[in-house]
Amino acid sequence: MTTVDDYGFYKAMCEKALEAYPFEGAPETSSKAMRYSLLAGGKRLRGVLALGGCVSAGGRAEDALPAACAAEMIHAYSLIHDDLPAMDNDTLRRGKPTSHVVFGEAQAILAGDGLLTEAFVCLSSIPDPVTASACVRCLAEAAGSAGMVGGQVMDMEKPSGAGAEWLREMERRKTGCLIRAAVEMGMICAGADGDMIRRGREYGAHLGAAFQAVDDILDVTGDEKNMGKSLGKDRDENKLTAVTLFGLDGAADAARRETALALEALSGLGPEADFLRRTAEMMLKRVN
Amino acid sequence: MTTVDDYGFYKAMCEKALEAYPFEGAPETSSKAMRYSLLAGGKRLRGVLALGGCVSAGGRAEDALPAACAAEMIHAYSLIHDDLPAMDNDTLRRGKPTSHVVFGEAQAILAGDGLLTEAFVCLSSIPDPVTASACVRCLAEAAGSAGMVGGQVMDMEKPSGAGAEWLREMERRKTGCLIRAAVEMGMICAGADGDMIRRGREYGAHLGAAFQAVDDILDVTGDEKNMGKSLGKDRDENKLTAVTLFGLDGAADAARRETALALEALSGLGPEADFLRRTAEMMLKRVN
Repeated sequence: MTTVDDYGFYKAMCEKALEAYPFEGAPETSSKAMRYSLLAGGKRLRGVLALGGCVSAGGRAEDALPAACAAEMIHAYSLIHDDLPAMDNDTLRRGKPTSHVVFGEAQAILAGDGLLTEAFVCLSSIPDPVTASACVRCLAEAAGSAGMVGGQVMDMEKPSGAGAEWLREMERRKTGCLIRAAVEMGMICAGADGDMIRRGREYGAHLGAAFQAVDDILDVTGDEKNMGKSLGKDRDENKLTAVTLFGLDGAADAARRETALALEALSGLGPEADFLRRTAEMMLKRVN
Repeated sequence: MTTVDDYGFYKAMCEKALEAYPFEGAPETSSKAMRYSLLAGGKRLRGVLALGGCVSAGGRAEDALPAACAAEMIHAYSLIHDDLPAMDNDTLRRGKPTSHVVFGEAQAILAGDGLLTEAFVCLSSIPDPVTASACVRCLAEAAGSAGMVGGQVMDMEKPSGAGAEWLREMERRKTGCLIRAAVEMGMICAGADGDMIRRGREYGAHLGAAFQAVDDILDVTGDEKNMGKSLGKDRDENKLTAVTLFGLDGAADAARRETALALEALSGLGPEADFLRRTAEMMLKRVN
Protein backbone atom coordinates (compact mmCIF):
# COMPACT_ATOMS: atom_id res chain seq x y z
CA MET A 1 0.00 0.00 0.00
CA THR A 2 0.99 3.57 -0.62
CA THR A 3 1.62 6.02 2.22
CA VAL A 4 0.58 9.58 3.10
CA ASP A 5 3.82 10.85 1.63
CA ASP A 6 2.81 9.89 -1.91
CA TYR A 7 2.12 13.43 -2.97
CA GLY A 8 5.72 14.35 -2.37
CA PHE A 9 6.91 11.16 -4.02
CA TYR A 10 4.86 11.69 -7.18
CA LYS A 11 5.74 15.37 -7.22
CA ALA A 12 9.47 14.53 -7.14
CA MET A 13 8.97 11.91 -9.85
CA CYS A 14 7.22 14.44 -12.04
CA GLU A 15 9.81 17.16 -11.34
CA LYS A 16 12.65 14.81 -12.25
CA ALA A 17 11.02 13.84 -15.55
CA LEU A 18 10.41 17.49 -16.43
CA GLU A 19 14.00 18.42 -15.57
CA ALA A 20 15.29 15.63 -17.79
CA TYR A 21 12.95 16.47 -20.66
CA PRO A 22 15.24 16.97 -23.68
CA PHE A 23 13.28 19.41 -25.90
CA GLU A 24 15.04 17.77 -28.81
CA GLY A 25 15.88 20.02 -31.73
CA ALA A 26 14.76 23.25 -30.04
CA PRO A 27 16.94 26.34 -30.61
CA GLU A 28 18.76 27.34 -27.41
CA THR A 29 16.64 30.44 -26.72
CA SER A 30 13.54 28.34 -27.16
CA SER A 31 14.48 25.56 -24.77
CA LYS A 32 15.82 28.11 -22.27
CA ALA A 33 12.53 30.02 -22.25
CA MET A 34 10.44 26.84 -22.06
CA ARG A 35 12.51 25.44 -19.22
CA TYR A 36 12.43 28.75 -17.33
CA SER A 37 8.66 28.48 -16.96
CA LEU A 38 8.31 24.71 -16.87
CA LEU A 39 10.82 24.33 -14.04
CA ALA A 40 9.68 27.31 -11.98
CA GLY A 41 8.33 25.16 -9.16
CA GLY A 42 4.72 24.92 -8.14
CA LYS A 43 2.64 22.11 -6.70
CA ARG A 44 2.73 19.92 -9.82
CA LEU A 45 -0.90 19.11 -8.98
CA ARG A 46 -1.74 18.10 -12.55
CA GLY A 47 1.30 15.89 -12.94
CA VAL A 48 0.75 14.28 -9.54
CA LEU A 49 -2.90 13.61 -10.36
CA ALA A 50 -1.93 11.86 -13.60
CA LEU A 51 0.52 9.61 -11.74
CA GLY A 52 -1.85 9.07 -8.81
CA GLY A 53 -4.79 8.51 -11.16
CA CYS A 54 -2.83 5.78 -12.91
CA VAL A 55 -1.96 4.02 -9.64
CA SER A 56 -5.55 4.40 -8.41
CA ALA A 57 -6.72 2.54 -11.50
CA GLY A 58 -4.26 -0.28 -10.89
CA GLY A 59 -1.42 0.92 -13.11
CA ARG A 60 2.21 1.81 -12.42
CA ALA A 61 2.95 5.49 -11.86
CA GLU A 62 5.78 5.51 -14.41
CA ASP A 63 3.38 4.50 -17.18
CA ALA A 64 1.65 7.87 -16.75
CA LEU A 65 4.83 9.98 -16.82
CA PRO A 66 4.30 11.23 -20.39
CA ALA A 67 0.74 12.21 -19.47
CA ALA A 68 1.97 13.91 -16.28
CA CYS A 69 4.63 15.88 -18.15
CA ALA A 70 2.19 16.81 -20.92
CA ALA A 71 -0.34 18.15 -18.38
CA GLU A 72 2.39 20.21 -16.70
CA MET A 73 3.55 21.58 -20.07
CA ILE A 74 0.01 22.69 -20.88
CA HIS A 75 -0.28 24.29 -17.43
CA ALA A 76 3.06 26.09 -17.84
CA TYR A 77 2.16 27.39 -21.30
CA SER A 78 -1.19 28.67 -20.04
CA LEU A 79 0.54 30.65 -17.28
CA ILE A 80 3.00 32.22 -19.74
CA HIS A 81 0.21 33.34 -22.07
CA ASP A 82 -2.10 34.43 -19.22
CA ASP A 83 0.67 36.65 -17.84
CA LEU A 84 1.25 38.47 -21.16
CA PRO A 85 0.71 42.25 -21.29
CA ALA A 86 -2.32 41.73 -23.56
CA MET A 87 -3.86 39.36 -21.00
CA ASP A 88 -3.41 39.76 -17.23
CA ASN A 89 -0.20 41.77 -17.61
CA ASP A 90 1.51 40.11 -14.65
CA THR A 91 5.18 40.79 -14.07
CA LEU A 92 5.66 38.30 -11.24
CA ARG A 93 4.76 34.63 -10.93
CA ARG A 94 5.80 32.56 -7.93
CA GLY A 95 8.13 35.40 -6.94
CA LYS A 96 10.01 35.31 -10.24
CA PRO A 97 9.75 37.72 -13.20
CA THR A 98 7.30 36.37 -15.77
CA SER A 99 8.46 34.99 -19.11
CA HIS A 100 7.84 38.13 -21.15
CA VAL A 101 9.74 40.24 -18.61
CA VAL A 102 12.78 37.99 -18.96
CA PHE A 103 12.66 36.98 -22.62
CA GLY A 104 10.50 39.67 -24.21
CA GLU A 105 6.97 39.34 -25.44
CA ALA A 106 7.69 37.58 -28.73
CA GLN A 107 9.80 34.85 -27.14
CA ALA A 108 7.25 34.42 -24.33
CA ILE A 109 4.44 33.85 -26.82
CA LEU A 110 6.66 31.35 -28.63
CA ALA A 111 7.71 29.60 -25.41
CA GLY A 112 4.00 29.08 -24.73
CA ASP A 113 3.36 27.83 -28.25
CA GLY A 114 6.37 25.54 -27.96
CA LEU A 115 5.26 24.03 -24.64
CA LEU A 116 1.69 23.57 -25.86
CA THR A 117 2.93 21.71 -28.93
CA GLU A 118 5.54 19.75 -26.99
CA ALA A 119 2.79 18.33 -24.78
CA PHE A 120 1.61 16.39 -27.80
CA VAL A 121 5.10 15.29 -28.80
CA CYS A 122 5.35 14.01 -25.24
CA LEU A 123 2.03 12.11 -25.39
CA SER A 124 3.01 10.54 -28.70
CA SER A 125 5.92 8.87 -26.87
CA ILE A 126 3.40 6.59 -25.11
CA PRO A 127 4.22 3.21 -26.65
CA ASP A 128 0.66 1.85 -26.96
CA PRO A 129 -1.10 3.78 -29.78
CA VAL A 130 -4.59 3.21 -28.34
CA THR A 131 -3.50 4.77 -25.04
CA ALA A 132 -1.58 7.53 -26.80
CA SER A 133 -4.43 8.63 -29.03
CA ALA A 134 -6.98 8.46 -26.18
CA CYS A 135 -4.70 10.72 -24.11
CA VAL A 136 -4.28 13.12 -27.03
CA ARG A 137 -8.03 13.44 -27.42
CA CYS A 138 -8.53 13.86 -23.67
CA LEU A 139 -5.84 16.53 -23.29
CA ALA A 140 -6.59 18.43 -26.51
CA GLU A 141 -10.31 18.66 -25.71
CA ALA A 142 -9.58 19.79 -22.15
CA ALA A 143 -6.93 22.33 -23.12
CA GLY A 144 -8.56 23.81 -26.23
CA SER A 145 -11.41 26.20 -26.81
CA ALA A 146 -13.95 23.75 -25.42
CA GLY A 147 -11.92 23.80 -22.20
CA MET A 148 -9.05 25.86 -20.86
CA VAL A 149 -8.56 28.25 -23.78
CA GLY A 150 -12.34 28.78 -23.86
CA GLY A 151 -12.23 29.66 -20.16
CA GLN A 152 -9.57 32.28 -20.75
CA VAL A 153 -11.59 33.63 -23.68
CA MET A 154 -14.57 34.01 -21.32
CA ASP A 155 -12.38 35.60 -18.64
CA MET A 156 -11.00 38.16 -21.11
CA GLU A 157 -14.46 39.23 -22.27
CA LYS A 158 -16.21 39.09 -18.91
CA PRO A 159 -19.72 40.54 -19.47
CA SER A 160 -20.80 43.34 -17.13
CA GLY A 161 -23.58 41.25 -15.55
CA ALA A 162 -21.38 38.18 -14.93
CA GLY A 163 -22.56 36.29 -11.86
CA ALA A 164 -22.31 32.90 -10.19
CA GLU A 165 -23.32 30.85 -13.23
CA TRP A 166 -20.87 32.62 -15.52
CA LEU A 167 -18.11 32.22 -12.91
CA ARG A 168 -18.76 28.50 -12.46
CA GLU A 169 -18.61 27.86 -16.20
CA MET A 170 -15.54 30.05 -16.70
CA GLU A 171 -13.65 28.35 -13.86
CA ARG A 172 -14.75 24.88 -14.93
CA ARG A 173 -13.14 25.52 -18.29
CA LYS A 174 -10.14 27.55 -17.21
CA THR A 175 -9.02 25.45 -14.25
CA GLY A 176 -11.26 22.42 -13.91
CA CYS A 177 -10.86 20.86 -17.35
CA LEU A 178 -7.09 20.37 -17.16
CA ILE A 179 -7.20 19.01 -13.60
CA ARG A 180 -9.93 16.59 -14.66
CA ALA A 181 -7.99 15.60 -17.79
CA ALA A 182 -4.88 14.86 -15.70
CA VAL A 183 -6.78 12.29 -13.58
CA GLU A 184 -8.48 10.88 -16.65
CA MET A 185 -5.23 10.50 -18.63
CA GLY A 186 -3.67 8.76 -15.65
CA MET A 187 -6.49 6.24 -15.64
CA ILE A 188 -6.29 5.82 -19.42
CA CYS A 189 -2.57 5.04 -19.01
CA ALA A 190 -3.52 2.31 -16.52
CA GLY A 191 -5.82 0.75 -19.12
CA ALA A 192 -8.86 1.48 -16.92
CA ASP A 193 -12.32 0.50 -18.14
CA GLY A 194 -15.10 2.94 -19.03
CA ASP A 195 -16.76 2.93 -15.59
CA MET A 196 -13.48 3.65 -13.81
CA ILE A 197 -12.66 6.47 -16.22
CA ARG A 198 -16.14 7.94 -15.73
CA ARG A 199 -15.53 7.99 -11.96
CA GLY A 200 -12.13 9.55 -12.50
CA ARG A 201 -13.66 12.25 -14.70
CA GLU A 202 -16.25 13.07 -12.07
CA TYR A 203 -13.71 13.08 -9.26
CA GLY A 204 -11.41 15.31 -11.29
CA ALA A 205 -14.16 17.75 -12.22
CA HIS A 206 -15.22 18.22 -8.57
CA LEU A 207 -11.62 18.34 -7.38
CA GLY A 208 -10.98 21.08 -9.92
CA ALA A 209 -13.91 23.10 -8.59
CA ALA A 210 -12.74 22.56 -4.99
CA PHE A 211 -9.23 23.59 -5.97
CA GLN A 212 -10.48 26.81 -7.52
CA ALA A 213 -12.51 27.72 -4.42
CA VAL A 214 -9.54 26.98 -2.15
CA ASP A 215 -7.29 29.00 -4.42
CA ASP A 216 -9.69 31.95 -4.33
CA ILE A 217 -9.74 31.83 -0.53
CA LEU A 218 -5.95 31.65 -0.23
CA ASP A 219 -5.63 34.51 -2.68
CA VAL A 220 -7.37 36.66 -0.08
CA THR A 221 -6.20 35.19 3.21
CA GLY A 222 -2.68 34.87 1.83
CA ASP A 223 -2.29 31.65 3.76
CA GLU A 224 0.07 29.92 1.39
CA LYS A 225 1.59 27.25 3.59
CA ASN A 226 3.32 24.58 1.53
CA MET A 227 1.09 24.49 -1.55
CA GLY A 228 1.11 28.21 -2.35
CA LYS A 229 0.54 29.47 -5.85
CA SER A 230 -0.14 33.17 -5.92
CA LEU A 231 2.86 33.99 -3.73
CA GLY A 232 4.69 36.81 -5.41
CA LYS A 233 2.02 37.30 -8.05
CA ASP A 234 0.44 40.64 -8.78
CA ARG A 235 -3.04 40.85 -7.25
CA ASP A 236 -6.08 41.88 -9.31
CA GLU A 237 -8.46 43.53 -6.87
CA ASN A 238 -11.44 43.60 -9.25
CA LYS A 239 -11.43 39.89 -10.00
CA LEU A 240 -14.74 38.05 -9.80
CA THR A 241 -14.21 34.95 -7.63
CA ALA A 242 -16.16 32.68 -5.30
CA VAL A 243 -14.92 34.89 -2.44
CA THR A 244 -16.03 38.20 -3.95
CA LEU A 245 -19.40 36.61 -4.82
CA PHE A 246 -20.13 34.54 -1.70
CA GLY A 247 -17.62 35.73 0.89
CA LEU A 248 -14.94 33.62 2.58
CA ASP A 249 -17.45 31.37 4.34
CA GLY A 250 -19.45 30.82 1.16
CA ALA A 251 -16.30 29.91 -0.75
CA ALA A 252 -15.25 27.50 2.03
CA ASP A 253 -18.71 25.89 1.85
CA ALA A 254 -18.27 25.44 -1.90
CA ALA A 255 -14.83 23.88 -1.37
CA ARG A 256 -16.28 21.42 1.17
CA ARG A 257 -19.25 20.57 -1.03
CA GLU A 258 -17.08 19.92 -4.10
CA THR A 259 -14.61 17.85 -2.08
CA ALA A 260 -17.48 15.70 -0.79
CA LEU A 261 -18.71 15.18 -4.36
CA ALA A 262 -15.19 14.30 -5.49
CA LEU A 263 -14.95 11.66 -2.74
CA GLU A 264 -18.42 10.34 -3.58
CA ALA A 265 -17.37 9.78 -7.19
CA LEU A 266 -14.73 7.36 -5.90
CA SER A 267 -17.19 5.45 -3.68
CA GLY A 268 -17.16 2.31 -5.83
CA LEU A 269 -13.36 2.06 -5.81
CA GLY A 270 -11.17 0.19 -3.34
CA PRO A 271 -8.15 1.25 -1.30
CA GLU A 272 -6.05 1.65 -4.46
CA ALA A 273 -7.90 4.98 -4.90
CA ASP A 274 -6.89 6.19 -1.41
CA PHE A 275 -4.28 8.51 -2.85
CA LEU A 276 -6.94 10.41 -4.78
CA ARG A 277 -9.07 10.56 -1.61
CA ARG A 278 -6.19 11.89 0.48
CA THR A 279 -5.30 14.47 -2.17
CA ALA A 280 -8.85 15.86 -2.10
CA GLU A 281 -8.83 15.97 1.72
CA MET A 282 -5.38 17.54 1.83
CA MET A 283 -6.49 20.27 -0.56
CA LEU A 284 -9.45 21.12 1.64
CA LYS A 285 -7.24 21.23 4.75
CA ARG A 286 -5.44 24.24 3.28
CA VAL A 287 -8.41 26.40 4.20
CA ASN A 288 -9.90 24.54 7.17
CA MET B 1 -6.33 8.29 -62.97
CA THR B 2 -6.44 11.75 -61.52
CA THR B 3 -6.36 14.85 -63.72
CA VAL B 4 -4.53 18.18 -63.82
CA ASP B 5 -7.42 19.79 -61.97
CA ASP B 6 -6.76 17.82 -58.79
CA TYR B 7 -5.28 20.77 -56.96
CA GLY B 8 -8.57 22.62 -57.23
CA PHE B 9 -10.51 19.50 -56.34
CA TYR B 10 -8.48 18.79 -53.21
CA LYS B 11 -8.50 22.47 -52.28
CA ALA B 12 -12.29 22.57 -52.46
CA MET B 13 -12.51 19.35 -50.44
CA CYS B 14 -10.27 20.81 -47.78
CA GLU B 15 -12.12 24.14 -47.74
CA LYS B 16 -15.46 22.39 -47.33
CA ALA B 17 -14.20 20.32 -44.40
CA LEU B 18 -12.78 23.41 -42.70
CA GLU B 19 -16.03 25.34 -43.21
CA ALA B 20 -18.00 22.49 -41.67
CA TYR B 21 -15.62 22.07 -38.75
CA PRO B 22 -17.81 22.38 -35.64
CA PHE B 23 -15.39 23.71 -32.96
CA GLU B 24 -17.58 21.90 -30.48
CA GLY B 25 -17.94 23.54 -27.09
CA ALA B 26 -16.05 26.72 -28.01
CA PRO B 27 -17.46 30.03 -26.69
CA GLU B 28 -18.90 32.12 -29.52
CA THR B 29 -16.08 34.71 -29.53
CA SER B 30 -13.58 31.90 -29.66
CA SER B 31 -15.08 30.05 -32.61
CA LYS B 32 -15.72 33.35 -34.41
CA ALA B 33 -12.08 34.38 -34.08
CA MET B 34 -10.77 30.94 -35.04
CA ARG B 35 -13.04 30.75 -38.10
CA TYR B 36 -12.12 34.30 -39.16
CA SER B 37 -8.52 33.26 -39.69
CA LEU B 38 -9.05 29.63 -40.66
CA LEU B 39 -11.52 30.53 -43.43
CA ALA B 40 -9.64 33.55 -44.76
CA GLY B 41 -8.76 31.85 -48.03
CA GLY B 42 -5.26 31.02 -49.18
CA LYS B 43 -3.87 28.22 -51.28
CA ARG B 44 -4.56 25.43 -48.79
CA LEU B 45 -1.20 24.03 -49.88
CA ARG B 46 -0.73 22.06 -46.66
CA GLY B 47 -4.23 20.58 -46.73
CA VAL B 48 -3.96 19.72 -50.41
CA LEU B 49 -0.58 18.04 -49.88
CA ALA B 50 -2.05 15.87 -47.12
CA LEU B 51 -4.89 14.74 -49.37
CA GLY B 52 -2.63 14.36 -52.40
CA GLY B 53 0.02 12.60 -50.33
CA CYS B 54 -2.56 10.08 -49.22
CA VAL B 55 -3.73 9.38 -52.78
CA SER B 56 -0.12 9.18 -53.97
CA ALA B 57 0.49 6.44 -51.44
CA GLY B 58 -2.53 4.47 -52.63
CA GLY B 59 -5.09 5.77 -50.12
CA ARG B 60 -8.38 7.61 -50.49
CA ALA B 61 -8.21 11.41 -50.15
CA GLU B 62 -11.03 11.50 -47.58
CA ASP B 63 -9.02 9.34 -45.20
CA ALA B 64 -6.55 12.21 -44.88
CA LEU B 65 -9.14 14.93 -44.23
CA PRO B 66 -8.43 15.16 -40.47
CA ALA B 67 -4.71 15.46 -41.25
CA ALA B 68 -5.41 18.09 -43.93
CA CYS B 69 -7.59 20.15 -41.57
CA ALA B 70 -5.08 19.81 -38.74
CA ALA B 71 -2.24 21.06 -40.95
CA GLU B 72 -4.35 24.05 -42.04
CA MET B 73 -5.26 24.82 -38.40
CA ILE B 74 -1.58 24.87 -37.47
CA HIS B 75 -0.84 27.11 -40.45
CA ALA B 76 -3.67 29.50 -39.55
CA TYR B 77 -2.58 29.70 -35.90
CA SER B 78 1.01 30.43 -36.91
CA LEU B 79 -0.13 33.33 -39.10
CA ILE B 80 -2.22 34.82 -36.26
CA HIS B 81 0.69 34.68 -33.81
CA ASP B 82 3.26 35.83 -36.40
CA ASP B 83 1.14 38.90 -37.15
CA LEU B 84 0.91 39.99 -33.49
CA PRO B 85 2.31 43.40 -32.48
CA ALA B 86 5.07 41.67 -30.50
CA MET B 87 6.09 39.64 -33.56
CA ASP B 88 5.85 41.01 -37.13
CA ASN B 89 3.19 43.59 -36.20
CA ASP B 90 1.22 43.10 -39.41
CA THR B 91 -2.17 44.74 -39.73
CA LEU B 92 -3.14 43.15 -43.04
CA ARG B 93 -3.12 39.54 -44.21
CA ARG B 94 -4.54 38.54 -47.60
CA GLY B 95 -6.10 41.99 -47.84
CA LYS B 96 -8.04 41.59 -44.59
CA PRO B 97 -7.30 43.12 -41.16
CA THR B 98 -5.31 40.68 -39.06
CA SER B 99 -6.86 38.86 -36.09
CA HIS B 100 -5.58 41.20 -33.38
CA VAL B 101 -6.85 44.22 -35.31
CA VAL B 102 -10.34 42.74 -35.42
CA PHE B 103 -10.57 40.89 -32.08
CA GLY B 104 -7.89 42.58 -29.99
CA GLU B 105 -4.57 41.14 -28.95
CA ALA B 106 -5.79 38.87 -26.15
CA GLN B 107 -8.42 37.16 -28.27
CA ALA B 108 -5.96 36.83 -31.17
CA ILE B 109 -3.43 35.05 -28.96
CA LEU B 110 -6.23 32.79 -27.72
CA ALA B 111 -7.56 32.14 -31.24
CA GLY B 112 -4.07 30.95 -32.11
CA ASP B 113 -3.83 28.80 -28.99
CA GLY B 114 -7.29 27.40 -29.74
CA LEU B 115 -6.46 26.48 -33.34
CA LEU B 116 -3.15 24.93 -32.36
CA THR B 117 -4.87 22.75 -29.77
CA GLU B 118 -7.82 21.95 -32.05
CA ALA B 119 -5.43 20.49 -34.62
CA PHE B 120 -4.81 17.67 -32.15
CA VAL B 121 -8.50 17.23 -31.33
CA CYS B 122 -8.93 16.89 -35.08
CA LEU B 123 -6.16 14.29 -35.47
CA SER B 124 -7.58 12.29 -32.59
CA SER B 125 -10.75 11.81 -34.69
CA ILE B 126 -8.78 9.48 -36.99
CA PRO B 127 -10.40 6.10 -36.26
CA ASP B 128 -7.27 3.93 -36.37
CA PRO B 129 -5.20 4.69 -33.23
CA VAL B 130 -1.90 3.66 -34.86
CA THR B 131 -2.50 6.15 -37.67
CA ALA B 132 -3.77 8.81 -35.27
CA SER B 133 -0.81 8.66 -32.93
CA ALA B 134 1.70 8.56 -35.80
CA CYS B 135 0.09 11.71 -37.23
CA VAL B 136 0.16 13.39 -33.81
CA ARG B 137 3.88 12.72 -33.49
CA CYS B 138 4.57 13.87 -37.05
CA LEU B 139 2.59 17.11 -36.71
CA ALA B 140 3.67 17.99 -33.18
CA GLU B 141 7.36 17.52 -34.00
CA ALA B 142 7.02 19.59 -37.18
CA ALA B 143 5.01 22.38 -35.56
CA GLY B 144 6.85 22.67 -32.25
CA SER B 145 10.15 24.13 -31.20
CA ALA B 146 12.10 21.53 -33.20
CA GLY B 147 10.23 22.80 -36.25
CA MET B 148 7.96 25.74 -37.01
CA VAL B 149 7.97 27.43 -33.58
CA GLY B 150 11.76 27.02 -33.51
CA GLY B 151 11.96 28.74 -36.89
CA GLN B 152 9.98 31.70 -35.63
CA VAL B 153 12.19 31.83 -32.52
CA MET B 154 15.24 32.04 -34.81
CA ASP B 155 13.55 34.67 -36.98
CA MET B 156 12.75 36.84 -33.95
CA GLU B 157 16.33 36.76 -32.67
CA LYS B 158 18.09 36.99 -36.03
CA PRO B 159 21.81 37.41 -35.23
CA SER B 160 23.62 40.32 -36.89
CA GLY B 161 25.84 38.08 -38.98
CA ALA B 162 23.02 35.86 -40.24
CA GLY B 163 23.81 34.49 -43.71
CA ALA B 164 22.82 31.75 -46.11
CA GLU B 165 23.23 28.87 -43.67
CA TRP B 166 21.19 30.58 -40.95
CA LEU B 167 18.50 31.46 -43.50
CA ARG B 168 18.26 27.90 -44.83
CA GLU B 169 17.87 26.46 -41.33
CA MET B 170 15.37 29.13 -40.24
CA GLU B 171 13.22 28.62 -43.34
CA ARG B 172 13.46 24.85 -43.14
CA ARG B 173 11.95 25.05 -39.69
CA LYS B 174 9.53 27.92 -40.17
CA THR B 175 8.02 26.88 -43.51
CA GLY B 176 9.49 23.58 -44.62
CA CYS B 177 8.65 21.40 -41.63
CA LEU B 178 4.87 21.86 -41.81
CA ILE B 179 4.77 21.37 -45.60
CA ARG B 180 6.82 18.21 -45.20
CA ALA B 181 4.61 17.00 -42.34
CA ALA B 182 1.47 17.51 -44.46
CA VAL B 183 2.77 15.14 -47.16
CA GLU B 184 4.01 12.70 -44.53
CA MET B 185 0.71 12.63 -42.62
CA GLY B 186 -1.13 12.04 -45.90
CA MET B 187 1.02 9.00 -46.55
CA ILE B 188 0.62 7.78 -42.97
CA CYS B 189 -3.17 8.01 -43.45
CA ALA B 190 -2.82 5.80 -46.53
CA GLY B 191 -1.02 3.19 -44.44
CA ALA B 192 2.17 3.68 -46.46
CA ASP B 193 5.28 1.66 -45.61
CA GLY B 194 8.51 3.10 -44.24
CA ASP B 195 10.22 3.48 -47.64
CA MET B 196 7.26 5.34 -49.12
CA ILE B 197 7.06 7.65 -46.10
CA ARG B 198 10.79 8.33 -46.32
CA ARG B 199 10.34 9.40 -49.97
CA GLY B 200 7.36 11.54 -48.98
CA ARG B 201 9.42 13.24 -46.26
CA GLU B 202 12.22 13.98 -48.71
CA TYR B 203 9.83 15.25 -51.37
CA GLY B 204 8.05 17.43 -48.81
CA ALA B 205 11.28 18.87 -47.42
CA HIS B 206 12.53 19.91 -50.89
CA LEU B 207 9.07 21.14 -51.92
CA GLY B 208 9.03 23.30 -48.79
CA ALA B 209 12.40 24.82 -49.71
CA ALA B 210 11.23 25.42 -53.30
CA PHE B 211 8.03 27.01 -52.00
CA GLN B 212 9.97 29.38 -49.80
CA ALA B 213 12.25 30.48 -52.65
CA VAL B 214 9.24 31.01 -54.94
CA ASP B 215 7.46 32.92 -52.21
CA ASP B 216 10.50 35.16 -51.66
CA ILE B 217 10.63 35.91 -55.39
CA LEU B 218 6.90 36.70 -55.62
CA ASP B 219 7.20 38.91 -52.57
CA VAL B 220 9.48 41.14 -54.64
CA THR B 221 8.07 40.78 -58.14
CA GLY B 222 4.55 40.98 -56.75
CA ASP B 223 3.49 38.54 -59.43
CA GLU B 224 0.78 36.82 -57.47
CA LYS B 225 -1.31 35.24 -60.23
CA ASN B 226 -3.73 32.73 -58.80
CA MET B 227 -1.77 31.40 -55.85
CA GLY B 228 -1.00 34.71 -54.15
CA LYS B 229 -0.17 34.90 -50.48
CA SER B 230 1.42 38.18 -49.55
CA LEU B 231 -1.20 40.22 -51.44
CA GLY B 232 -2.36 42.93 -49.10
CA LYS B 233 0.27 42.10 -46.49
CA ASP B 234 2.58 44.73 -45.06
CA ARG B 235 6.06 44.45 -46.59
CA ASP B 236 9.18 44.25 -44.42
CA GLU B 237 11.98 45.82 -46.47
CA ASN B 238 14.81 44.61 -44.22
CA LYS B 239 13.91 40.94 -44.34
CA LEU B 240 16.68 38.47 -45.07
CA THR B 241 15.50 36.18 -47.88
CA ALA B 242 16.93 34.12 -50.73
CA VAL B 243 16.31 37.15 -52.96
CA THR B 244 18.14 39.67 -50.76
CA LEU B 245 21.00 37.18 -50.37
CA PHE B 246 21.32 35.76 -53.90
CA GLY B 247 19.24 38.08 -56.08
CA LEU B 248 16.19 37.11 -58.14
CA ASP B 249 18.15 34.80 -60.43
CA GLY B 250 19.87 33.09 -57.53
CA ALA B 251 16.56 32.52 -55.81
CA ALA B 252 15.04 31.13 -59.01
CA ASP B 253 18.02 28.76 -59.32
CA ALA B 254 17.37 27.58 -55.77
CA ALA B 255 13.69 27.01 -56.56
CA ARG B 256 14.58 24.94 -59.64
CA ARG B 257 17.20 22.95 -57.77
CA GLU B 258 14.86 22.13 -54.88
CA THR B 259 12.03 21.22 -57.26
CA ALA B 260 14.35 18.81 -59.10
CA LEU B 261 15.32 17.21 -55.78
CA ALA B 262 11.65 16.92 -54.79
CA LEU B 263 10.88 15.13 -58.06
CA GLU B 264 13.92 12.89 -57.66
CA ALA B 265 12.67 11.77 -54.24
CA LEU B 266 9.57 10.37 -55.98
CA SER B 267 11.58 8.52 -58.61
CA GLY B 268 10.76 5.07 -57.27
CA LEU B 269 7.01 5.73 -57.24
CA GLY B 270 4.51 5.05 -60.04
CA PRO B 271 1.87 7.23 -61.69
CA GLU B 272 -0.16 7.39 -58.45
CA ALA B 273 2.40 9.99 -57.31
CA ASP B 274 1.80 12.16 -60.40
CA PHE B 275 -0.23 14.65 -58.38
CA LEU B 276 2.75 15.37 -56.15
CA ARG B 277 4.95 15.73 -59.27
CA ARG B 278 2.52 18.16 -60.90
CA THR B 279 2.19 20.18 -57.71
CA ALA B 280 5.97 20.67 -57.56
CA GLU B 281 6.08 21.67 -61.23
CA MET B 282 3.09 24.00 -60.88
CA MET B 283 4.75 25.77 -57.97
CA LEU B 284 7.91 26.38 -59.98
CA LYS B 285 5.85 27.73 -62.93
CA ARG B 286 4.76 30.63 -60.74
CA VAL B 287 8.19 32.21 -61.19
CA ASN B 288 9.30 30.81 -64.57
